[in-house]
Amino acid sequence: MSAAPTRRVLVANRGEIAVRVIRAAHSCGWEAVAVHSDADAGSRWVALADEARHIGPSPARRSYLDIDAVVQAALDSGCTHVHPGYGFLAERPEFARRVREAGLVFVGPSAEVIESMGDKASARRTAEEAGVPVVPGSGVVADPAGARAAAADIGYPLLIKAAAGGGGRGIRVVRADDELEGAVSTAQAEASAAFGDGSLYLERSIEGARHIEVQVVGDTHGNVVHFFERDCSVQRRRQKLLEEAPAPGLSTTLRDEITGAAVRLAAEVGYQGAGTVEFLVEGERFYFIEMNTRIQVEHPITEMVTGTDLVVEQLRVAAGEPLSVSQGEITLQGVALEFRINAEDPQQDFFPSPGELTRFDPPNGPGVRVDSGFVSGGRIVPYYDSLVAKVVVHGRDREEALARATQALTELTVDGVVTTRDLHLSLVADEEFRAGGVTTTWFEERSTASDRSAEG
Amino acid sequence: MSAAPTRRVLVANRGEIAVRVIRAAHSCGWEAVAVHSDADAGSRWVALADEARHIGPSPARRSYLDIDAVVQAALDSGCTHVHPGYGFLAERPEFARRVREAGLVFVGPSAEVIESMGDKASARRTAEEAGVPVVPGSGVVADPAGARAAAADIGYPLLIKAAAGGGGRGIRVVRADDELEGAVSTAQAEASAAFGDGSLYLERSIEGARHIEVQVVGDTHGNVVHFFERDCSVQRRRQKLLEEAPAPGLSTTLRDEITGAAVRLAAEVGYQGAGTVEFLVEGERFYFIEMNTRIQVEHPITEMVTGTDLVVEQLRVAAGEPLSVSQGEITLQGVALEFRINAEDPQQDFFPSPGELTRFDPPNGPGVRVDSGFVSGGRIVPYYDSLVAKVVVHGRDREEALARATQALTELTVDGVVTTRDLHLSLVADEEFRAGGVTTTWFEERSTASDRSAEG
Repeated sequence: MSAAPTRRVLVANRGEIAVRVIRAAHSCGWEAVAVHSDADAGSRWVALADEARHIGPSPARRSYLDIDAVVQAALDSGCTHVHPGYGFLAERPEFARRVREAGLVFVGPSAEVIESMGDKASARRTAEEAGVPVVPGSGVVADPAGARAAAADIGYPLLIKAAAGGGGRGIRVVRADDELEGAVSTAQAEASAAFGDGSLYLERSIEGARHIEVQVVGDTHGNVVHFFERDCSVQRRRQKLLEEAPAPGLSTTLRDEITGAAVRLAAEVGYQGAGTVEFLVEGERFYFIEMNTRIQVEHPITEMVTGTDLVVEQLRVAAGEPLSVSQGEITLQGVALEFRINAEDPQQDFFPSPGELTRFDPPNGPGVRVDSGFVSGGRIVPYYDSLVAKVVVHGRDREEALARATQALTELTVDGVVTTRDLHLSLVADEEFRAGGVTTTWFEERSTASDRSAEG
Repeated sequence: MSAAPTRRVLVANRGEIAVRVIRAAHSCGWEAVAVHSDADAGSRWVALADEARHIGPSPARRSYLDIDAVVQAALDSGCTHVHPGYGFLAERPEFARRVREAGLVFVGPSAEVIESMGDKASARRTAEEAGVPVVPGSGVVADPAGARAAAADIGYPLLIKAAAGGGGRGIRVVRADDELEGAVSTAQAEASAAFGDGSLYLERSIEGARHIEVQVVGDTHGNVVHFFERDCSVQRRRQKLLEEAPAPGLSTTLRDEITGAAVRLAAEVGYQGAGTVEFLVEGERFYFIEMNTRIQVEHPITEMVTGTDLVVEQLRVAAGEPLSVSQGEITLQGVALEFRINAEDPQQDFFPSPGELTRFDPPNGPGVRVDSGFVSGGRIVPYYDSLVAKVVVHGRDREEALARATQALTELTVDGVVTTRDLHLSLVADEEFRAGGVTTTWFEERSTASDRSAEG
């Protein structure tokens, strides 16, 4: 009798998501290999992994974004699988392809699916084919004349979006006809520089809407299920600050429609792995924005309300196993919130505040979960994002979750860097936020109002 | 329109349970006042409370056990309620009485109920009246002759128990007739010294049984519900090392019978507040041992599998509110385990290892909860118990819970004191423990066997 072959996953990322994947791997009997740049040699994920590989200098493009170095590390360490985390190489089709060509299994959908969803114009077409409502908009516009024609159909305000963008990047707002031409040229140049692809499309700018997204997971046996939705409307410059599951006040009808649409879209492309289908919700209407073909920062709140470990599901799918739950077994329990504690100074326009975490005492106790890449003495380095920790709370209802949030954020101690903790405490205390259902422009309007009142 | 009157609870305890009660109070809008001895002036619960009161020198009898000082602190700080935690004054009827006489509300059952359950012989009678099976045994035995007569009925091995004992204290085993008389005199003297009451009773010693206890909560509106059971069979010298909910492998029939018996017993005495009814379980038979009229160390595992905050329920009951859940709404979700991380050296017969926690990084992540009275830099002082932290894990099933336990215990870093962490890691890896259903003698037999094998 021989033992089951050891599965060994290369965690091609850093920070809290690297720690998260290592935990998930261990919790289902896999080995995990960490990678690190120069700056991250003494990191927590290196300490927790079964093995660690140095992949290059500190700047991400010379380490975490270096496909050759990452694939080589996986091969050298005898890995069978590669988990990309989020960010870095997670949505680069060529990375998924290179992993496959090296004879390893990429933990995520195929390179082809990543590519088709990564091209936002093509993703829109797929959504339309699956009968999923999309924001009124254009296909790829080739030049200023094409943009003018499309804009006449769509109306203002509208968004210019880079087809290769995503996660809030590569987006410009245009409010009037006379701004259009200049904005298109600038956006084209920016998209070429940022994504290596200058393709653009236009979309109606839906303002005062909520950002609601649906977690889906598909396996290699033809199953696609959803794990309900998250509300990520509290944003600053299209970056999420905090997230909540389920979306407060969403009607059962709308929840059924949105989750159904997300599953249809994923099924349409034969989606395998974990993914998120993002929507704008305006009253009882909803519009597909984009699909992220990876695990998301805010996945823990879904885990808290459904009791399912989504990273373990990713690994199961990558190992060819069926999902551990059927749609009927996935139910909502309570309310969860996630607060992104960044080393940034909200008083200084969220300027990064790197440095050593001379003291880091995460909160704990009932209904509190913290995901972090650091312990006391860890260092927030300027090369990467400024996420110190995700403070996640769960309560039987929204009131309990909010009370636990206040307590957990109060308990959190971070010395050595400035963080966004106090901002989150003020958000949790905000009457409008507590009422539920704020829109994506709420946070910035609130900040402007508070600036004005500070000036007055 | 006037706001609801502020409720303010004195937390008459220290360590993790003081932190736990403060969190619960805040999570339902109450204020919390901490107390502390000299040694605990810089403690975490002092920092987290809305106010803190010094109640005396470090030895517990001059502070945490000083009823006058504690009641005075509650009055001086304008408290409306007093939560006793566990240990210290939690099961002293005179404390509950003094709190009531001071015009404050004791968070727990009445002094009379504490008294009747605290007298183990009287508790046995109550159980019999409620139709709850008890271990064959005697009433209070007055002298050696009475003990001999009772022992003839009961048979050997038997236990001599102090009527005023509890929580594993005040118990002696007698294996043969000729040991009886000497054991009774010694036990009488010990019980007088320890509890101020030399009353004894005899009970058959049920060996190779499991320790299974049922969490109950009653309110002031006549409701008594159970929150299922915990298995606390892994014990050393009758002290629990780790606990699990629900009890692995318990048949549904037996679960229904045991939980039903616990509710009957609590209802029989009009129980108000949280309490635990402890049983020995041998095959499909079970016997009442005792009822603890307070929150228990291991309550978090019940919270993890039922989603209910038991300390919040205690506060609700003390405020005259009905329980937040009905019996039908309380369901079991997954499996939870608690590991008591003590500053003790298992290699040196569990000798206490006090000192400064020069580094304390609790584990975190999905399904992990830590309850602790300390952060890095805290100090385990020799005056009190040696509990550093309770590491609690929850999984969708036992396999996931055990895997998360291994990961969490591995992640836990405590420098500065020796702890029982490695012992817990070895227990989680033990094939017999993993199979489920070990008995109360298992741990000591295992240790003896391993000592023998080390000697051989």
